[in-house]
This record gives sequence, structure tokens and C-alpha cells, in this order.
Amino acid sequence: MSVGIVGAGQLGRMLALAGYPLGIHCLFLDRAADTPAGQVAETLIGELDDPTLLRELATRSTVLSFDWENVSVSALRAALKGLKTRAAPPLRALATGQDRLAEKRLFERLGIPTTRYAPVSSRGSLAAAMRRIGLPAVIKTRRMGYDGKGQRVVRSSTEAHAAFEALGAVPLLYEEWIGFEAEVSAIGARGRRGELALYPLSRNFHSDGILRLSLAPWEDPALERLAKRHLRALLAEFAYVGVLAIEFFVRGRRLIANELAPRVHNSGHWTIEGAQTSQFENHLRAISGLPLGATGARGYSAMINLIGEIPAAGKLLGFPGLHLHDYGKSARAGRKVGHCTLIETDAGRRDLRARQLVRELYPGLAAIP
Amino acid sequence: MSVGIVGAGQLGRMLALAGYPLGIHCLFLDRAADTPAGQVAETLIGELDDPTLLRELATRSTVLSFDWENVSVSALRAALKGLKTRAAPPLRALATGQDRLAEKRLFERLGIPTTRYAPVSSRGSLAAAMRRIGLPAVIKTRRMGYDGKGQRVVRSSTEAHAAFEALGAVPLLYEEWIGFEAEVSAIGARGRRGELALYPLSRNFHSDGILRLSLAPWEDPALERLAKRHLRALLAEFAYVGVLAIEFFVRGRRLIANELAPRVHNSGHWTIEGAQTSQFENHLRAISGLPLGATGARGYSAMINLIGEIPAAGKLLGFPGLHLHDYGKSARAGRKVGHCTLIETDAGRRDLRARQLVRELYPGLAAIP
Repeated sequence: MSVGIVGAGQLGRMLALAGYPLGIHCLFLDRAADTPAGQVAETLIGELDDPTLLRELATRSTVLSFDWENVSVSALRAALKGLKTRAAPPLRALATGQDRLAEKRLFERLGIPTTRYAPVSSRGSLAAAMRRIGLPAVIKTRRMGYDGKGQRVVRSSTEAHAAFEALGAVPLLYEEWIGFEAEVSAIGARGRRGELALYPLSRNFHSDGILRLSLAPWEDPALERLAKRHLRALLAEFAYVGVLAIEFFVRGRRLIANELAPRVHNSGHWTIEGAQTSQFENHLRAISGLPLGATGARGYSAMINLIGEIPAAGKLLGFPGLHLHDYGKSARAGRKVGHCTLIETDAGRRDLRARQLVRELYPGLAAIP
Repeated sequence: MSVGIVGAGQLGRMLALAGYPLGIHCLFLDRAADTPAGQVAETLIGELDDPTLLRELATRSTVLSFDWENVSVSALRAALKGLKTRAAPPLRALATGQDRLAEKRLFERLGIPTTRYAPVSSRGSLAAAMRRIGLPAVIKTRRMGYDGKGQRVVRSSTEAHAAFEALGAVPLLYEEWIGFEAEVSAIGARGRRGELALYPLSRNFHSDGILRLSLAPWEDPALERLAKRHLRALLAEFAYVGVLAIEFFVRGRRLIANELAPRVHNSGHWTIEGAQTSQFENHLRAISGLPLGATGARGYSAMINLIGEIPAAGKLLGFPGLHLHDYGKSARAGRKVGHCTLIETDAGRRDLRARQLVRELYPGLAAIP
């Protein structure tokens, strides 16, 4: 069985590694040979929207997927034309995930609480949005945002106008800035016959727009029930196949949807060692029409992103019980180059050891409790 | 970091997959391209003792290892000459593992109980061995045996002479045949500075000379202490680096060493999901000079070999909580093509579900309790 994947980053790498034991081979398309996934599986080299290469990828695969949501939906659609190869997740979910405005409107339509917002495309619509929604606010590009890129928090009209200029002549979204008590994410898989496999909730900690730490399971039964209800609504809406993630803010026992990702998600990396079946395996099982695997937690996990460079492997692996995931990337400030996971038998000890490891790895980082 | 591995079978495949998350790339040498490991990592194609290819493998690696013990020690030694690349496990351990007579003598020297034996190379020495050791017995080739190949159980002088003829004009070993209550194996890693990481005991069930089922941990503290003492003695004797396995017979609360394997071992495959660090990861950590990982069990595991062919993936993966490992081999009667692992929270439930799965997969198999 062969799965074609557009984009060969670390998500693709972990998909490929999860596929081999199942007898599933992933074939990638990306711009360079020495990508994280390209180091562990065959890659076609070229632009992500190259019609000839996309067609080759689709022809050589039984299902076509992606490890990054900013790939061209129309190019994927063209590549699949007349073939029996399916796209999974569905391209409609991909298109929605690419456009923050479409995402907001869908959240509203499904009754999933989200922040107040307004589309902005001119100084006039910016002024109107400011009046209606107020300050502080976040101004984001509607498209191509990830890891905090393409967005600015603004506290004044001057800052708002400066952000509008800086983000360029592209469609923007003006969003209410809200304080929150926590960030959590809900991740789950849906199979071809509608069967579901939903993971326990994870609590996430960001700094500079980049996820630093996820703790899972984050045991809050009421919030988890609510998050899973929203997740099920989205999965059903798209007749989804594969893994889907939603990030929420928690505010006064309410969940406020921040964004969705139509793919495996950084806040689900803990599932590799911390759940009975990883999100990567369940994504492949779902899109390949195989039965989904159990999602129960195995202990209490802390997943810590390695940003900029991998600390000396000896130092990291000397931390008892630590699982390292090196993405095979060169070092660069602010770049996700790997992650590591700790697993403990209770939540208190997990939190304690996670804090200790974060302090050791990132002594300068204040944002993690 | 690059590890060169001679032989690209399923052990190599699982080593390669364990290596990627650590940032370790395995490079293989084997006779064909489409081997289990060759499907997931780069392979040099040629004979396992080809001097030019072995030299290339050694030159491109920081450490040279093997996934099969019947590789030529002198060819490895020649390939390493003048290079800084180390061999691990040590070639002396490899040489001992290749020769059943050397293995027996070493067990005796270290005070590790083993079956009575005599080398046999002629009809005269066969008759002498029969008189001294008695019948029934097992006649084995001294070299190149695995999975029950190259050995015969004999119950009479006629059978003994027939086996002597059938096994050919090669050095043989005549061994006492003993009844036993159970088979267990002890597996552990030793690092470059002598640090140890020993796994819990596993209980093994063979049929037709092929391992079918391993249950681990097999909780018998007295036997485990004894097995680990023997394992430590062997690891120290060789100043070993990497993973070593010993198979024992259990008879009247005593352990009787059957054989050693200077490599990761089939009866340790449960450690992928069932231990904090897998035997594959610990082998790579040890031979690469990295700290060893914790070996504690995560729940109670049952590992079942898939022999002949992989059952339909849908059927197998529909078994809740099952982890599949497809080796990417074509189907062939008696061939190990994969394994699967179940993990439960107590030993009783593990044994029950393992029995159920074995019955489903191998309805004809009587030898597994």
C-alpha cells in the first residue's frame, strides 16, 4: 500500500516511520531531497504544485495526503482527475483550514464558540473592525499563517495601522484579543465508514507563537466532553477521513476555538509513546481504510519541542525515560528541529519532570509555568 | 551519526526505524535491494563478505554492526583495518556466537549451566558421544544454525547415524536432549563504559524450531535474578557493547543455557511497545556511545510471530490494541514475515488475549498452551 504525501517535513517523517510497520510506504513531494521525510522515504523533487509531479504522486499512490495545509487545493484536484486515488483528508477540509475567515464562519455555523472577528481588506474596513470589535486585537493574514507567522497583536489604532501596512496587501482578519486561562487541543481520527478514534485532551503552552510544551492527558472531564463534541461536529461536517486537530482557548470553563488543522498536529506528538496508537498511525489507518487503533493514554505524557537546535544527544538521552525525536533538520533560531517526550505514572510527577526538563533546555524561557 | 550494518533483514529494519528518531542513520550491506531493511534505508548490494563493499560500509560509518550472526568475522576484521570505525558487538562475541562448541565451552568456563555435549566429527566420535551422553540427544551443526535449521533430535543409534549422514561432512555437536518446563530469555545492553540496561525476563514458546510467542515480563524473581547474573557474566567477559541475548531452558527451578545471540533478539521484540526503551534503540544507543535507556516494562506484553504470511491487515488491526510489525517480506511457508504485540495491564489478561489471538491466527498450532 502506498500513500502519497505533499510536503516532506517532520509530520511526513513521522507518518513514514509509522507506516513501515503497517506495510504502508509513503512517497513524498517536496522542493529538496534532504528534507525530514526525504531522509527516511522516497521523494519526488519539485514545487508542491507542479502538475506533472503531483500527477505522478497521485498515480503511484492509493491515497493522496499532505503534511502541510498550505498546499494548492486546485492543483491537488487536477492531479486526481480521472484517477481512482482518493484525497484524504477531504479537500474541502483542507480549503477551510487554509482560510481563517472560512474557518471562523464554519465554527459559527456549527455552534462552536470562537473569538469575534471581521475581515479586513482596506483602511476603511480596518477602522470599522476596530470600532466594532475594539482593542487589543490580533491582525492575521487570512492565508499562509503558521507558528505565529503572519500575525500581530495590536493595542492601539497606531499599532493596528502599522500592522495593516506590514502584513501587506493581502486579505486580513481582525480578531478580538482575549485573555485565557489555558490552551488545549482536541485531536481525533475518523475512518471511511464514519468510525471515530478521539484522543484525550492535551494542554499546550506556547511562547513566541511556537508550541513549547504539551501535557496529555489533561484531565478535565467537562472540558474534554465539550472539546470532543466540537471535534465530532467538525469531523461529521466534512465527512472527514484522517486526523483532525482543533486548538481552543479555555476561558471561564468555556472553550473558544482558535483554529483547526486538517492533519496530524504538533500537540499530538505525545501519542507516539503516550497513547495506545499514535496519531500518525491512526491517520494512516484512517486514510488507508484500515480499522482505527485505540486512543487510550499510556501514562501521563509531556511533549517538549526542541527549538533552534537539538541539545547534545548524550545530555538529552541521559534524562531517564526520555524519548527523542530528531527531525534531521539543520539548526536555525526559532526552528522546530525535534521534540522529546517524557512519560510518568501520575500527572503530578509528569508536570514536575516536564518543568525540570524545560528549565534545563530553555533556561531563558519564562512563559512556561 | 551513521551505523553500518551487515545484513538487511527484519532486525536491521527495526534498527533503522529505531535509529531515525535518534538522528542515527543505518546503512546496510546485503545481497538484494528489496530486503526488509533495504525498503527503509540505503543498502549497498553485494555479498556479505565482499571486501570492497565491506570497506565502503566501514568507511561511511562510525560503528560497524550486523543483524545476523553468520557473517564472516575475518572479512569484518579486514574491512576495519586501519580505520577508526569500531565493531560492535565485539567480534570475539560474534565468533563465539557462530560456533556452538565455543559457546558451550564459554558457558562452562563462566559457570553457566548448560546441557552436556560432545563435539562430533566422525562415526567414531559419534559412537563415543552416544555412550557418554546417552539418548535421546540433539545433533547440531556447529555453525550456521538458526530457527531450528541444522539440527535433529535423535532417539536411537540408527537415528543418530542417519542424522550424522544427513547433516553432512561438517563439524557437529552432540547434545543431551532434556525435557524442560519452560524456555525463557534474558536480554540486555552494555554501553562503552560498562553501564548495563537489562530487560525483564521473557517466556518463549517455540514450535517446529521457530519462536511463536513471547510473554514478558515473565515474573519469576528468583529465575530473573539468576538469568541476569549469567547475562552480566557474559557481557563482562566480552567487554560487550550492544545488545546480547541468552536463551535458557527452565528445569526444576534451574536455568540451563541453550544458546547466546550477540545481537537484538526475536524474543525481545515486545520491548518496542512494551518497555520504556526498545532493544533496538538500546542497541543503537550502546554502540553509538550514547546513554542507555530505561528497560522497565510498560504493562504486560505478548509478542506473536507472524509465520508464512501476514493475515489481512484489516483483520489483524481490528484486534483492539494490537501493534503490527510487517517486515515487508513476500509470503513463504515457515518464513517469519512479521510480528504483532499486545499489551495489557495485568499478566492474566495478557495471557488470555495472547491465547485467543494465537488460536485465531494459527488454529492448527498445538504447541502453544
